[in-house]
Amino acid sequence: MADVLFRVDLNKPMEEQETPGHNRWHPDIPATVSVNPGTEFRMECKDWTDGQIQNNDDPSDIRDVNLHRVHVLSGPVWVNGAEPGDLLVVDILDIGTFAESQWGFNGIFAKQNGGGFLTDHYPDAAKSIWDFHGIYATSRHIPGVKFAGILHPGLIGTAPSHALLDKWNKREKELVAKNPDRVPGLANLPSPDSAVLGSLKGEKFNRIAREAARTVPPREHGGNCDIKNLSKGTRIYFPVFVDGAKLSLGDLHFSQGDGEISFCGGIEMAGWVDLHVDLIKGGMAKYNIIENPVFKPGPVDPHYSEFLVFEGISVHETTGEQHYLDAHIAYRRACLNAIDYLKTTMGLTGEQAYMLLSTAPVEGRISGIVDVPNACCTLWIPTSIFDRDILPS
Amino acid sequence: MADVLFRVDLNKPMEEQETPGHNRWHPDIPATVSVNPGTEFRMECKDWTDGQIQNNDDPSDIRDVNLHRVHVLSGPVWVNGAEPGDLLVVDILDIGTFAESQWGFNGIFAKQNGGGFLTDHYPDAAKSIWDFHGIYATSRHIPGVKFAGILHPGLIGTAPSHALLDKWNKREKELVAKNPDRVPGLANLPSPDSAVLGSLKGEKFNRIAREAARTVPPREHGGNCDIKNLSKGTRIYFPVFVDGAKLSLGDLHFSQGDGEISFCGGIEMAGWVDLHVDLIKGGMAKYNIIENPVFKPGPVDPHYSEFLVFEGISVHETTGEQHYLDAHIAYRRACLNAIDYLKTTMGLTGEQAYMLLSTAPVEGRISGIVDVPNACCTLWIPTSIFDRDILPS
Amino acid sequence: MADVLFRVDLNKPMEEQETPGHNRWHPDIPATVSVNPGTEFRMECKDWTDGQIQNNDDPSDIRDVNLHRVHVLSGPVWVNGAEPGDLLVVDILDIGTFAESQWGFNGIFAKQNGGGFLTDHYPDAAKSIWDFHGIYATSRHIPGVKFAGILHPGLIGTAPSHALLDKWNKREKELVAKNPDRVPGLANLPSPDSAVLGSLKGEKFNRIAREAARTVPPREHGGNCDIKNLSKGTRIYFPVFVDGAKLSLGDLHFSQGDGEISFCGGIEMAGWVDLHVDLIKGGMAKYNIIENPVFKPGPVDPHYSEFLVFEGISVHETTGEQHYLDAHIAYRRACLNAIDYLKTTMGLTGEQAYMLLSTAPVEGRISGIVDVPNACCTLWIPTSIFDRDILPS
Amino acid sequence: MADVLFRVDLNKPMEEQETPGHNRWHPDIPATVSVNPGTEFRMECKDWTDGQIQNNDDPSDIRDVNLHRVHVLSGPVWVNGAEPGDLLVVDILDIGTFAESQWGFNGIFAKQNGGGFLTDHYPDAAKSIWDFHGIYATSRHIPGVKFAGILHPGLIGTAPSHALLDKWNKREKELVAKNPDRVPGLANLPSPDSAVLGSLKGEKFNRIAREAARTVPPREHGGNCDIKNLSKGTRIYFPVFVDGAKLSLGDLHFSQGDGEISFCGGIEMAGWVDLHVDLIKGGMAKYNIIENPVFKPGPVDPHYSEFLVFEGISVHETTGEQHYLDAHIAYRRACLNAIDYLKTTMGLTGEQAYMLLSTAPVEGRISGIVDVPNACCTLWIPTSIFDRDILPS
Repeated sequence: MADVLFRVDLNKPMEEQETPGHNRWHPDIPATVSVNPGTEFRMECKDWTDGQIQNNDDPSDIRDVNLHRVHVLSGPVWVNGAEPGDLLVVDILDIGTFAESQWGFNGIFAKQNGGGFLTDHYPDAAKSIWDFHGIYATSRHIPGVKFAGILHPGLIGTAPSHALLDKWNKREKELVAKNPDRVPGLANLPSPDSAVLGSLKGEKFNRIAREAARTVPPREHGGNCDIKNLSKGTRIYFPVFVDGAKLSLGDLHFSQGDGEISFCGGIEMAGWVDLHVDLIKGGMAKYNIIENPVFKPGPVDPHYSEFLVFEGISVHETTGEQHYLDAHIAYRRACLNAIDYLKTTMGLTGEQAYMLLSTAPVEGRISGIVDVPNACCTLWIPTSIFDRDILPS
Repeated sequence: MADVLFRVDLNKPMEEQETPGHNRWHPDIPATVSVNPGTEFRMECKDWTDGQIQNNDDPSDIRDVNLHRVHVLSGPVWVNGAEPGDLLVVDILDIGTFAESQWGFNGIFAKQNGGGFLTDHYPDAAKSIWDFHGIYATSRHIPGVKFAGILHPGLIGTAPSHALLDKWNKREKELVAKNPDRVPGLANLPSPDSAVLGSLKGEKFNRIAREAARTVPPREHGGNCDIKNLSKGTRIYFPVFVDGAKLSLGDLHFSQGDGEISFCGGIEMAGWVDLHVDLIKGGMAKYNIIENPVFKPGPVDPHYSEFLVFEGISVHETTGEQHYLDAHIAYRRACLNAIDYLKTTMGLTGEQAYMLLSTAPVEGRISGIVDVPNACCTLWIPTSIFDRDILPS
Repeated sequence: MADVLFRVDLNKPMEEQETPGHNRWHPDIPATVSVNPGTEFRMECKDWTDGQIQNNDDPSDIRDVNLHRVHVLSGPVWVNGAEPGDLLVVDILDIGTFAESQWGFNGIFAKQNGGGFLTDHYPDAAKSIWDFHGIYATSRHIPGVKFAGILHPGLIGTAPSHALLDKWNKREKELVAKNPDRVPGLANLPSPDSAVLGSLKGEKFNRIAREAARTVPPREHGGNCDIKNLSKGTRIYFPVFVDGAKLSLGDLHFSQGDGEISFCGGIEMAGWVDLHVDLIKGGMAKYNIIENPVFKPGPVDPHYSEFLVFEGISVHETTGEQHYLDAHIAYRRACLNAIDYLKTTMGLTGEQAYMLLSTAPVEGRISGIVDVPNACCTLWIPTSIFDRDILPS
Repeated sequence: MADVLFRVDLNKPMEEQETPGHNRWHPDIPATVSVNPGTEFRMECKDWTDGQIQNNDDPSDIRDVNLHRVHVLSGPVWVNGAEPGDLLVVDILDIGTFAESQWGFNGIFAKQNGGGFLTDHYPDAAKSIWDFHGIYATSRHIPGVKFAGILHPGLIGTAPSHALLDKWNKREKELVAKNPDRVPGLANLPSPDSAVLGSLKGEKFNRIAREAARTVPPREHGGNCDIKNLSKGTRIYFPVFVDGAKLSLGDLHFSQGDGEISFCGGIEMAGWVDLHVDLIKGGMAKYNIIENPVFKPGPVDPHYSEFLVFEGISVHETTGEQHYLDAHIAYRRACLNAIDYLKTTMGLTGEQAYMLLSTAPVEGRISGIVDVPNACCTLWIPTSIFDRDILPS
């Protein structure tokens, strides 16, 4: 087995781990370990909330979650020889669960604390616990469904340079300034509250905690992309912005639907990832991969041949207002259409259906994006996840 | 073979066909034919522009296209017994090309006349002609690529009710009013210019031409969804808004990428579609399918197991401005990243790469839509469409 | 559309066609047409029996079929520049049906006239007629099933050299000599009865008719392989044994199960095939492709993700005798097991289930071939071809 | 994690394990554990040879292997309530490797000791060691290939009844009697040599060791089917022949090609399997599943869209003799054709190519089985397992 280069104790918060990880992005967070190109190694990860959510039927932990604590990450890993301008080639060799933690959670954040894609429709907290049965997951909170996992790190990325970090902070600050009192907020700006910065302490900790970017959004380095297909066997090409590349990861999901629409999230879990790293020197310029990672998905994702597909267009569902090629609204409409359908055919509550779309391997497609003024997005649900035939007849 | 219920002569404009079709949506456009539930029949279709584009190397026909003429549709088909509230079940049994027209076109509309998803980057008209070789397509204008078609009607839908039509006109008018001088326009409002309304003439023609909605956007009835997977073998469940359902279709594509990003469009072609129709009486309420069609894709779409995937986030590529969970911008960034890559690895011009993403069977996914403030969209390119290995190495 | 280089009139027998094809293999059967490498062209084909079977419910035509008449082939096509030792690269660009012939047939040959894989179990003639609905087929004789076609030529091959033909005749004659009175026969030796040899007449016809190999088995040149995956988009690399390669084809199937177990056969049909040919000079030695074609399947075969799989081992079903790694018996047992199951779960007769396995896109696998003394073969049935859930519960 | 109900120590032979398993089939081998229907549990397994093969470059352990020792199995598991006539429903929830044993082996048995599918062509012992890299395997002994595993138990089955055991012994004895001196033997008859029978000792051990069937072939109860698709997520329906069903399993493979042609075997490994069991009371009669298991494959097998396919016919490769619809010979010819090709295009030795076809996820199909006198079998090789393009060009 690959050597474990980052270990976690599920009973301790991240800052008390033998080698603490981090929950902010900053070039000066020290690496926890170094590896040579060509190395295979294992990284253990806590769930993204650092263990705040319990395996029970009470959603109050979801409702009251401390979101300043997220996402607790494992790393950074220093890759010897990596320099800005290189491509870091990361193979996700395998992903697994811990024997003692055969469950994950999904939930709906309260609108007042986190929100989500459908927060205006489902403003109250809810929780679903998912049990793992080998490759399959089921939930006692969402009857009638069972599906194979598509395990992946919701979050994986290299460290930003100082210049890149500055750019992030500037643009996100400007966005928040447009509506600083909005709930949920337009973005999460740097905050020392609950920051974990590896081994940093004292004044250096304080300075970096004030500067470091939150981990919530995906950005040029990858980060919290929540791409469900960064699964077993995937090869990712990351831009390198700092010496050593400083790769970190976390936010493991047993499964997730495209969009991770509930925000909380996929089927969130603790677990481990086996990685292989390599370098393409000067690869960013050579391949014109400048601002975002590129990847080749692995060969063992669950495969389905039958789907039921819901469409949505960019007309606001409540106001009826016509928006211009707005794929966000179009996908929301597709999701709402699917929830309406599942309420009828599967007898689910809206909340159950919402959490199902956030966890099951549904696909979200931008089908049409030019037919002014309506974007058309589609939501693809594999029909074999249900214990009955859900097609109209 | 299924009886041909709608015939076209490719050498005549739509209004001069023996039975003219239409290029507007209105409940009062008369049906051209009626069928019973359970019938199989063939509908022939002209290309969406009504034959304005020629099989040559000169893009001036794209540049000067009359967009008031689009989309010329075949139908409406009256389905006996269909009433508002029913679901019209349409099976796309097969789709094919005409022996005498073994080619299609794609293009980039000029920003001044149509525009497209990347019109700010590629404002000038361009054209690519695609030759059909059985199931495959190649273009003399885009070397190094060959792929199997995924034939589909870009546009298929039932007629709106008067109430629904009024809603469309109202909301689109309000949108245009926000920036009436924008080029390209925010929406296309009703216009008698170049309208074709079946057999209507005289005053009735004039009235309806003023009221009838343009066919450009997808709407509650389906319409111009440009969903590439409405292909051979697909079953679609349409809401019925008027007696007889009044199904129309057109805008056939030999292939298309998700998003149809160039707007002009997929590989646009003339051809035929074999349909089977049936009814689920009262199905809209029974299945809670109220505002958009639902479909089950067919089993013979080309299948690929290897993709190279590009990511994009909702930061404006030129201004660097941070947008809030804007999937439109995120997908645009993914497309631009892919174009950058293809310029380097395949030696294509930006225009060629742009047209390739609009025609090849690429998938556009909404991967993450909740990680404030960045949406993350991904563009999936099947690697086997290229005549060489394009992966970084 | 590709030029039609071989035309058929479905109302005339092969020898009365304007350009007759052939139903024997011999190097001296004259080519009907010549093409250059790089050419795309269409070949029309009659069904393999030359029109002996009618679209009705009476199996007497199956029972009394003249098997000396099979397989009527279209060609030979002379490929300019082809020489022995080359590889002939054949792309199957597309395959289709005739508008006036939207049906095909399957049947069970009587044991006394043809037989089949399960002839000892089902010795009497039966027939099933299949109707085409675009990409789908259904049969009024086998209720409860519907599936997408996987169109292919059951038979396609280059002409043998004289030396190769002599080898075939010698070895098959020796086989027949082991049990010359067996019914059905061990092989079909050359016979002038009902021979069609293109334009040949008189003494030359008589000589060649006595020498020419029957078309029933697959051999080193390809021929009647009945590989269901030689379908749309497939590229085949054929060894070339004579100048001009002399490619012929026929025996079109709308669909077939692996093994084509009823012998009569897949869903047999008339239709057309669009081909593209090219040459790899000296390719046989260069690629060590000496005795059988090699192929790369196309990308649009129907794809299924759920199968029910039946196993069989090489113990004789009637005598209980143990055979040594006999995959023929093992596959027969798997088929018989499946038939038993389908009788119970689908309410089919044994004959219906037998014809279904011969026509539907089932897969036959050699799963284990070394575990002495039992071979293990498996039969894979896609579950979505049935109108109900057939799994045990 | 599922409770471990059967543990192995890789450093001890099976008879010295704390709870020994068995390497023979007999109804009287005592169960090692009992479970209720509905239980999930883990079974650990040694490799099939009981640890005789070492991770080194010397094939002498393959050459000298004690085949009386195979296959060491884990179990039997008693399922409470199971009775003859029931169906035992076994879900393979997951399969994994041991952290301390991240490798497997394949080899060619010497013709004098074991043999294999191509033993007349490759009579000498050879060995390839495969290293696991998460989901992938590579071998230092076979350069240029890498593929995702398709983990499965080569052997899994219920215990035979006394009557069924008697039938096995009788028919296999009769087979051996036809050529008792053949090397390799036609079958492996009961032998006390190296027998392991769980906790049995003394006279009872002696009696049962003389009666118990060897584990080599698949039989009516399942057993050593070596079906590579009994992989993660598969559901198997086993006939039950004795009270408690007495399920045993072993012979784990990291990967295997259809046929497991080298006999030694797939990528053989030690590891664990997580199972869920349930019962369908009276299911054998209800579903007409009498003599062999039936299964539904899981959803996460590696999926490939591009294959190169080799054909073979039932003419003996050395003598040229024509055999009658012999799928064994036809598949052998297909394998030999593929080996010829791989020698040329990949530069492999024949032995390397032989071991590759036995380990890589190749598919073996019975394509045509009725075209007298030639069976046609095909060997499908996914092209993406190679580090270069192997197609003819």
